[in-house]
Amino acid sequence: MTQSIGIARAHTNIALIKYWGKRDKELFLPMNSSLSLTLDAFYTDTKVVFDTELTADSFSLNQKEQSEKEIEKISRFLNLFREYIGEKRFARVESLNFVPTAAGLASSASAFAALALATASALQLDLSMEQLSTFARRGSGSSTRSLFGGFVEWEMGTCSEDSLARPIDPADWDLAMLVLAVDTSQKKVASREGMDHTVATSPFYQAWVDTAKADLAAIKKAIAERDFDKVGQIAEHNGMKMHATTLSANPPFTYWNAGSLLAQEAVRQVRQDLGVSAYMTMDAGPNVKVLCRASDVDKLVGALSQHFPADKIITSLPGKGASQLTEADWQASLERFGAGGQL
Amino acid sequence: MTQSIGIARAHTNIALIKYWGKRDKELFLPMNSSLSLTLDAFYTDTKVVFDTELTADSFSLNQKEQSEKEIEKISRFLNLFREYIGEKRFARVESLNFVPTAAGLASSASAFAALALATASALQLDLSMEQLSTFARRGSGSSTRSLFGGFVEWEMGTCSEDSLARPIDPADWDLAMLVLAVDTSQKKVASREGMDHTVATSPFYQAWVDTAKADLAAIKKAIAERDFDKVGQIAEHNGMKMHATTLSANPPFTYWNAGSLLAQEAVRQVRQDLGVSAYMTMDAGPNVKVLCRASDVDKLVGALSQHFPADKIITSLPGKGASQLTEADWQASLERFGAGGQL
Repeated sequence: MTQSIGIARAHTNIALIKYWGKRDKELFLPMNSSLSLTLDAFYTDTKVVFDTELTADSFSLNQKEQSEKEIEKISRFLNLFREYIGEKRFARVESLNFVPTAAGLASSASAFAALALATASALQLDLSMEQLSTFARRGSGSSTRSLFGGFVEWEMGTCSEDSLARPIDPADWDLAMLVLAVDTSQKKVASREGMDHTVATSPFYQAWVDTAKADLAAIKKAIAERDFDKVGQIAEHNGMKMHATTLSANPPFTYWNAGSLLAQEAVRQVRQDLGVSAYMTMDAGPNVKVLCRASDVDKLVGALSQHFPADKIITSLPGKGASQLTEADWQASLERFGAGGQL
Repeated sequence: MTQSIGIARAHTNIALIKYWGKRDKELFLPMNSSLSLTLDAFYTDTKVVFDTELTADSFSLNQKEQSEKEIEKISRFLNLFREYIGEKRFARVESLNFVPTAAGLASSASAFAALALATASALQLDLSMEQLSTFARRGSGSSTRSLFGGFVEWEMGTCSEDSLARPIDPADWDLAMLVLAVDTSQKKVASREGMDHTVATSPFYQAWVDTAKADLAAIKKAIAERDFDKVGQIAEHNGMKMHATTLSANPPFTYWNAGSLLAQEAVRQVRQDLGVSAYMTMDAGPNVKVLCRASDVDKLVGALSQHFPADKIITSLPGKGASQLTEADWQASLERFGAGGQL
């Protein structure tokens, strides 16, 4: 028996310039470059064990064995690496999502970033994080950005090899993000189906792509200048434009529910009452995320709690990039997971 | 003392192809032609008395004397007629809005259509309804369409004289509209400011205008063919696109609140459960309007009441065009208003 083991952690990220639509569905090549902030509070730890005695891949998530369908997704992803090294070895994959259940942020971004790094580590591949992001991309586009910390750009590139993530700024200034976790009990449109339908039917889609490119250039300049309000304004405008494309699809649809509007109204009320800068963004789900200054978090959370359930407001500072973990780290993660459940 | 009196009734209308933005703010020339359904259930009765002994205009709405600001709006509108006849005569204007308070539909459409017809009647002007609609337009764009019944098109025209409304179809087939009245206690963005801001800042605006033109051609064909589902699908897509333009404005805004999403979800649930056609549209406010077959009203209202307050669901059949009223009609209106308040 020969085992090769890799363990890694990757944090989730929230796009400020959204990825919303593919120009190549097979290769996950996006219509536009995107930019995100990696979050410290939410992450996935993943252990990959390649074992010559295994006859199939297996996958447990949060200590529960997963269905054939879920294993199939993992296998397809591992195939990218198996093809790269030209060897067919099966693996045991174990993942722990450290995401508050209420946050509804069990995103594929941290999952595929952690899996990519753990796999490359197990296989002792000599890949840069940028190169690794081209693998992660094939699992989930947004996972490219979770390989780095702070502000990260996923460059759309020209082909599979150069459609990759790069760090832009460590975001080690006065920044934080609040997640207003909205009830997610209703069935939702998967982001993949939502973006495909939008690309295929929205008459506003081309203008989305064109202006997303301009938004990206503008937000990079604002980040370089540490102009918080500019960053926030561009992000809020860009995010709402993404949601506008879903309303303009045919038939139209929305990721928003009543709770999303209550959260939005709370943010608008509080920033007006306090005169504090706070900018909203939303993804393919009902949660509202708020970019703010770390130094304003207490004030904002206090005021928001008057309008929105306090236990549904989760705070995060900017997070670091993906990193390898030791077996001792993994044991600690297992313990933490067992003790706190999903936090 | 010389008095000349005109009394008229005009119904409100709900646009299925929206008017959303002006190419000339002074003349109320729209960016695109629009199309609406006039509703029977909501209307305004207005009496205009020109009196040589008056030294100023006055205006009462729902038996309450109005502020200088409101009177000023009426005076500016009356000036159009005074300029047309080349005589300065002041008028007493009295209006009664027969709109359920809950509906939040006290729209300027029925108001300016009724005022235009009552004024023309008082002045014994020999104007066609089409010509009269060019006057009404200067008070409120959407009021052009309230001069006619059924499906009505407001042709964008090339200048003030030919930007007018025309009847398209009497809508005397199996049609109805439900209004899901959503809490309107929150402050809202006036439609005029909302559309101006959208025209000025939305990168999706041009695509809105371009596709609204295509939508109009398509819905007119569907109306001619009495293809209910096609009419509804085009209307729902067009209306959601209008709301998408507000999200894409900079800064973004929305007319929706949490209640709007609850109403939308109720409609989606019910049409899925019942398999009954029902199409949504929304205007510059939080209410959700549902185009359906008159023969499905009972079934739909029953099912919607499981998800939305039954007393906030108001049904209307298609309505007739504006008409002159007699003094006896007016006395009856006053009595009805006194007895039932705003219904």
